[in-house]
Amino acid sequence: MSSESALDIAADVRAGRRTAIDFAERSLARIRERDGAIGAITRVLADRALDEARAVDAIVAGGGDPGPLAGVPYAVKDLFDVAGLATTAGAGMLRDAPPATCDAEAIVRMRAAGAVLVATCNMDEYAYGFATINATFGTTKNPCDISRLAGGSSGGSAAAVAAGMVPVALGSDTNGSIRVPAALCGLYGYKPAHGSLPMAGVYPFVDSFDDIGPFAGSIDELSAVCTVLAGSTFSIENEKKIARLTDWFADNLSDEMQGALAVFGSLPELSLPNVEQARSAAFLMTAAEGGRRHLPELRCRAMAFDPATRDRLIAGAMLPAAHYLAALEVRERFRATVERVFETYDVLVAPCVGEVAPTIADPVVTVDGERVPARAHLGRLTQPISFIGLPVIAAPLSLPNGLPLGVQLIGWPGREGALFAYAKRLERDGVIGSVPVF
Amino acid sequence: MSSESALDIAADVRAGRRTAIDFAERSLARIRERDGAIGAITRVLADRALDEARAVDAIVAGGGDPGPLAGVPYAVKDLFDVAGLATTAGAGMLRDAPPATCDAEAIVRMRAAGAVLVATCNMDEYAYGFATINATFGTTKNPCDISRLAGGSSGGSAAAVAAGMVPVALGSDTNGSIRVPAALCGLYGYKPAHGSLPMAGVYPFVDSFDDIGPFAGSIDELSAVCTVLAGSTFSIENEKKIARLTDWFADNLSDEMQGALAVFGSLPELSLPNVEQARSAAFLMTAAEGGRRHLPELRCRAMAFDPATRDRLIAGAMLPAAHYLAALEVRERFRATVERVFETYDVLVAPCVGEVAPTIADPVVTVDGERVPARAHLGRLTQPISFIGLPVIAAPLSLPNGLPLGVQLIGWPGREGALFAYAKRLERDGVIGSVPVF
Repeated sequence: MSSESALDIAADVRAGRRTAIDFAERSLARIRERDGAIGAITRVLADRALDEARAVDAIVAGGGDPGPLAGVPYAVKDLFDVAGLATTAGAGMLRDAPPATCDAEAIVRMRAAGAVLVATCNMDEYAYGFATINATFGTTKNPCDISRLAGGSSGGSAAAVAAGMVPVALGSDTNGSIRVPAALCGLYGYKPAHGSLPMAGVYPFVDSFDDIGPFAGSIDELSAVCTVLAGSTFSIENEKKIARLTDWFADNLSDEMQGALAVFGSLPELSLPNVEQARSAAFLMTAAEGGRRHLPELRCRAMAFDPATRDRLIAGAMLPAAHYLAALEVRERFRATVERVFETYDVLVAPCVGEVAPTIADPVVTVDGERVPARAHLGRLTQPISFIGLPVIAAPLSLPNGLPLGVQLIGWPGREGALFAYAKRLERDGVIGSVPVF
Repeated sequence: MSSESALDIAADVRAGRRTAIDFAERSLARIRERDGAIGAITRVLADRALDEARAVDAIVAGGGDPGPLAGVPYAVKDLFDVAGLATTAGAGMLRDAPPATCDAEAIVRMRAAGAVLVATCNMDEYAYGFATINATFGTTKNPCDISRLAGGSSGGSAAAVAAGMVPVALGSDTNGSIRVPAALCGLYGYKPAHGSLPMAGVYPFVDSFDDIGPFAGSIDELSAVCTVLAGSTFSIENEKKIARLTDWFADNLSDEMQGALAVFGSLPELSLPNVEQARSAAFLMTAAEGGRRHLPELRCRAMAFDPATRDRLIAGAMLPAAHYLAALEVRERFRATVERVFETYDVLVAPCVGEVAPTIADPVVTVDGERVPARAHLGRLTQPISFIGLPVIAAPLSLPNGLPLGVQLIGWPGREGALFAYAKRLERDGVIGSVPVF
């Protein structure tokens, strides 16, 4: 990560101690220097970044306030509309699509808060994957170890932050696409309560689950960006009761992950029923809604798809409606079950991913003793949570060997204040925390 | 219809001029006398009716108020839970199902208002049809002409009222199952705004569209029963602007129907776009959700289904999720289109069914010059409206030859007061009105 936090940058720029142009140039230089090895960035927006930075500096020079993220360089996943650019959603077939006529609402809000957009970032095609292995735009490497995956589908955004190119970046999370790369790259990431952050101008994948959110190096930065994106702050609540999820969420963890979770001490343990069913239903709804969305293109130019995406979308488009409706029933039941749990607890703790980042040479994870493809299985611990739209902070656990692991801090919609309060306390106590810049 | 209205009965019983027992016995006698020819009733609940009537009379004798429907006999479609009886939903395979342990919420509310349940009524199996042709329970005849269909799927409830067995009855409407039999039997019927009347204890068919509602012989009776079912009254509003729907809703009307609509005078005409698409999507969602619901039984005992229902459910269970999701998109667009119309208008007028009741010997209707099965096509004018959950009063138009026709008075959710005010004015002016008892 960048040696200076987004909040330090904004404080310096607002106070006139440093200029936004300085920070934008530094970010652009860092991209030039580092991205050849990482492959996080798809398009560098130097002209736009310098224009936005100049505008911020002009406001400061005029005695005005450019906003809480004044001069903070950031990048966005390749599915946010950026005026004048094709929104590719990671798809080669959209590289020459008509350019977006205006920015996504999230970018409008970031700009209004003084942030400076410097680049767009790599992703799995159409956000359908947990690996950021992209047939057109390449594989994004993990800045912590470039022989390993950054995770996905927002892997480019995560890697850009982890490599210190930008202090914050925006991604999207449908089944884990912010939480998984946050965990593998050693960052904080936030998947909001479903529907609570603005989706206008974001290329859709699965309406039932799609959300946007930020990556950052600290809880305060994460919270500041969320406030800007939401247009409001969370009402601060003290967290009261915390539990750790067991069974599905404690099986298939590497020894390292089991050891790392010890930092939480002795939390009450809680077993949610039917988690595997919930994950299956999330998988099925994702396939069906994704397949439906891309069916017209699958019909007439299937070979233009990334092979890794094509077959999953075709299969999804053929699922029977009866299965989809059954999945909706599973969701209602699972939501009701978890809602009762949140009558007692404020935050639930579970791993993001059970092990460290898989290698690019052999991209697999271990489930029930078998080596299975990382692309589809890295989300097994995140999918059941986004299935019912809960807000989650993904937080990094530091490890001696430098390979990060991450935990999900899971809250309830409307009670995000307790979630952030708990995360802040954990960070202060050194239970969760930042991993050094690579 | 009964020579006395529900409101006259309640006034007499509350004033102690007549007893609830008298009215219950009269209703039971009328069922014995008439139902052999009609086939509206599946189970006569004499003991329960007399018990409920006695309880009402005891309250009056004690100086209390038994409620706004004191002593009013009524019947319910065979899909309302009645404590102690199997809820068959018109399915032979459910005749020996475990009895319901308590009444449906609608029945609880009717009883609390003093109404007296006397019978359950015939329907299409699982409410999937517009004919009330039932392989197990027989075909319900239209009291206006027993060689004709009563319409469905709530045909038994409509026929019971039209034959004067009860002054009011409850049915359910998913795609037109209250409005179609109301039209064919010359009654008022009400399909509420989706989700606004209590569904607890009602055998489901299609969650996206299912609603319950009453049949009655006048707007005041319809309104009184709705108030009891809803537990609240509509805020009275004056209707301001009325329009008549054209194109889809004006094509395929018989000469009689075209003539009958002249009573509305010169209303502004309005053409809704994409009505056929809306109806197709409603059809598809119905098939998919119905197929999903009955898939377990279809898998292991398909031959226990009514043949007319079985094939439609099997086809529905095989529809692709991509089609279902496309239908949801059609619904959002159609709802938005119609919402804009209701920014200008308060009530839209359209026929319920384009012609008089089809004969039982040749159950067809005419569409685009072709004779097509009545069972599936009687709902072509009602389906596009319930597709987006609008409240509708079905109202009878009197015809010289005694065969009724009906119109839909279509309102907007939350503005039912304007709808009822308009209907009341039309009734007072003799534009819509009751058909004599047969």
